[in-house]
Amino acid sequence: MKDSIKVFASATVANVTCGFDVLGFAVSNPGDEIVLKPNTVGKTRILEIVGDGGKLPTDPAQNTASVSINKYLEHIESGQGFDIYLEKKMPLGSGLGSSAASSVAGVFAANLMMGSPLSSLELLSFAMEGERQACGSAHADNVAPALLGGMVLIRSYDPLDVIPIPVPKPLYVSLVHPQISIATKDAREILKKQVLMKDAVKQWGNIAGLVAGLMQGDFSLVSRSMQDVIVEPIRSILIPGFDLVKAAALTNGALGCGISGSGPSIFSLSADMQTAEKVGEKMFEVFKDLDIMSEVYISGINADGPKVLG
Amino acid sequence: MKDSIKVFASATVANVTCGFDVLGFAVSNPGDEIVLKPNTVGKTRILEIVGDGGKLPTDPAQNTASVSINKYLEHIESGQGFDIYLEKKMPLGSGLGSSAASSVAGVFAANLMMGSPLSSLELLSFAMEGERQACGSAHADNVAPALLGGMVLIRSYDPLDVIPIPVPKPLYVSLVHPQISIATKDAREILKKQVLMKDAVKQWGNIAGLVAGLMQGDFSLVSRSMQDVIVEPIRSILIPGFDLVKAAALTNGALGCGISGSGPSIFSLSADMQTAEKVGEKMFEVFKDLDIMSEVYISGINADGPKVLG
Repeated sequence: MKDSIKVFASATVANVTCGFDVLGFAVSNPGDEIVLKPNTVGKTRILEIVGDGGKLPTDPAQNTASVSINKYLEHIESGQGFDIYLEKKMPLGSGLGSSAASSVAGVFAANLMMGSPLSSLELLSFAMEGERQACGSAHADNVAPALLGGMVLIRSYDPLDVIPIPVPKPLYVSLVHPQISIATKDAREILKKQVLMKDAVKQWGNIAGLVAGLMQGDFSLVSRSMQDVIVEPIRSILIPGFDLVKAAALTNGALGCGISGSGPSIFSLSADMQTAEKVGEKMFEVFKDLDIMSEVYISGINADGPKVLG
Repeated sequence: MKDSIKVFASATVANVTCGFDVLGFAVSNPGDEIVLKPNTVGKTRILEIVGDGGKLPTDPAQNTASVSINKYLEHIESGQGFDIYLEKKMPLGSGLGSSAASSVAGVFAANLMMGSPLSSLELLSFAMEGERQACGSAHADNVAPALLGGMVLIRSYDPLDVIPIPVPKPLYVSLVHPQISIATKDAREILKKQVLMKDAVKQWGNIAGLVAGLMQGDFSLVSRSMQDVIVEPIRSILIPGFDLVKAAALTNGALGCGISGSGPSIFSLSADMQTAEKVGEKMFEVFKDLDIMSEVYISGINADGPKVLG
């Protein structure tokens, strides 16, 4: 076994407007870095976390990365222990899949250290256990794209059915994370348990259009389909200035714009890097005019999943 | 102008399990035949309808074919009149898009007679007016596939956005029309106005999977995605033996099975003609065991839309 491994796993955008709870994609930046070193105590230990402002638990039973790694090690019936050094290079509670990035980085690194007995797809259920630890529900719409890369559909949870959606033409992502805080739990609780049939029909027309547009590289269709009539009207209330930020993105050439995961981050998709940069800038400015500072990340869609850094 | 034209337009399967109100496809058989002859009275007249058991209106203001043709002629500002001879070669009120076949055959034939000033897509709104006449609502999920051929997504009605879904691998359809009667209006009225969010999420996961599976020729994914947790559980109550018929189709190799449109016809998709024939036979037998006689139609998906017969 190697002395150590260093892995990067990226932020992800879940929901993607009309794909609430079923669609997500990975970006190239930001993300988390994890270093794993085998130890001889037969237990997973968290030796260091930096970049989290002291907010993340270092108890291995509570941290998403160690929970995922332990579930993985149990499954392969290994008594191996690892020491974890986690560097959070992305904001927590941002709607950018922070907990997923840590879980995926951890389980991906552990699998490599063990000689890759499992495929990336097989690692998914362990990373989902990290999500269960982080937010109470083993959702897959962040961990699946973080692990597999690209655009990923979670068709079903029971049984789990994860479908990579090929996107043959490049797409560019502008992420803006305003310095406000929303708990995933709150963002979920304000949603209605029932929706109007006519809205549900619009939503599944749009997600069908979005998938068809992505697969065909028909960005006009992608743009027309990026509409969420069910979740965005409710969750956007929690994000001051959301409508203005979205309008600025669309006016400046974005194909579509929506809440990333449960927010407060907002994402836009654009057909070229230059537009994505301009859109990011304009979104930043709208928040700034409202006295809300934000971080902006511009990148392509990350088709590859986690990356070994050393 | 030619002395006459004869056009065939086909039956269609709307909804396609998880695609309620947004998805439909055309088959090669059955369908309607229409003959149009220009007249000199400057009005559309229905001179003959056969095969309808005397059930269809011959008043041009009430018949779907003539209503569509008149809307078309108004739009192109033509004073031309046509005499219509309509041969219904498919059952009425069957859930197979009977009214759509007549509307599409009519408006397609009229456009050809006028020298094709409009594209097939441009004819859609006139055929939809025939649907409004037939069932009170200008729905497009039968007329769009009948007119354009193939698998068609109605992403949105406002604005109307109709997306052909390419299906690169052949699919075969078994249609079974049992001799029971359901009015589209009743089938619509028993549906709930609200649905559970968790069911809606399942449904849009499935339609996204179905579109991805069709476009990639991944028939295993098509099969897994052909599930309707919202409409079928309610509408199937109106079709005696539905669960048994569906079970027989799936047991005998169908990829998926569901209600065609608002029923009572049931459709199955199969990966080859032999399976489609066997599936059709077994579905017929289940109905027969329940003392319900039925008609069976086996065909491929009709990629071409209406056909000029002479």
